[in-house]
Amino acid sequence: MRVIGIDPGLRNLGWGVIDVEGSRLSHVANGICHSDTGELGARLLSLHEQLTAIFQRFAPQAAAVEKTFVNKDGAGTLKLGQARGIAMLVPAQFGLAVGEYAPNSVKKTVVGVGHAAKEQIAHMVRVQLPGVDLAGPDAADALAIAICHAHHARMPATLAQRVRA
Amino acid sequence: MRVIGIDPGLRNLGWGVIDVEGSRLSHVANGICHSDTGELGARLLSLHEQLTAIFQRFAPQAAAVEKTFVNKDGAGTLKLGQARGIAMLVPAQFGLAVGEYAPNSVKKTVVGVGHAAKEQIAHMVRVQLPGVDLAGPDAADALAIAICHAHHARMPATLAQRVRA
Repeated sequence: MRVIGIDPGLRNLGWGVIDVEGSRLSHVANGICHSDTGELGARLLSLHEQLTAIFQRFAPQAAAVEKTFVNKDGAGTLKLGQARGIAMLVPAQFGLAVGEYAPNSVKKTVVGVGHAAKEQIAHMVRVQLPGVDLAGPDAADALAIAICHAHHARMPATLAQRVRA
Repeated sequence: MRVIGIDPGLRNLGWGVIDVEGSRLSHVANGICHSDTGELGARLLSLHEQLTAIFQRFAPQAAAVEKTFVNKDGAGTLKLGQARGIAMLVPAQFGLAVGEYAPNSVKKTVVGVGHAAKEQIAHMVRVQLPGVDLAGPDAADALAIAICHAHHARMPATLAQRVRA
């Protein structure tokens, strides 16, 4: 199964694609969609086009998006929400259901604790995907989200096997 | 000039289309895009498809979206932001720049004061667009946004005429 993880953001939208075979994970690609300047509609359109191209190129079969908000800053949360809308729309346009994970849940799955620094996440992503070349912290987070989704998606199958065994 | 106004929301996304000729406004259509249930990606996809169909049918030449956020509720703001992302994306996909107006600015333009009740807005929309049949409060707000945009878009031309006179 090929999984894409997305760390939504208006300026920097991180993405990472992995292949999952049983418990074996392998890195496919990662990167960051940028939309630095211009009016909001044009920026969202640019993110939509960049992300659509990534889905066309790598054809993921499952998708997961980080679930986060900036509680103290309404304007910041709205901005993030708009980028997140695009991050949720594109997988749906490709017929995929979208897993949603809170940052703490991602960190707990990938690092083992709910409060981990950015560097720890990047480190554990490198450990779990040997040889990966990270495009930046947002891309590392996106790969962590993909790993988290692979782990959660595997759970039911594993349980089913146990029940059958 | 044909103008569409959009009042973004995940459950109810109001829209209203008007024609503007000089200072004359006339109603074209209004309605509400619904996405009540299901997972978030599917709901955003449904909003995107409904709004795209409206743009294809009515071919607006200008667009405006309400700029609002729920400051005290991060989760609510994020939800709204995601719907707003779709409301901003669709006009951009049709090559239109998108005007953004805060609720107070819309109310000030349409009702004359920054703090107006929903019923006042609907009343003034009916006064300015005689014979209009409103699909609901969200559609009335959307028409108010379109009226606000028509007013603001007209301003530079009026000023230019004054300078020339």
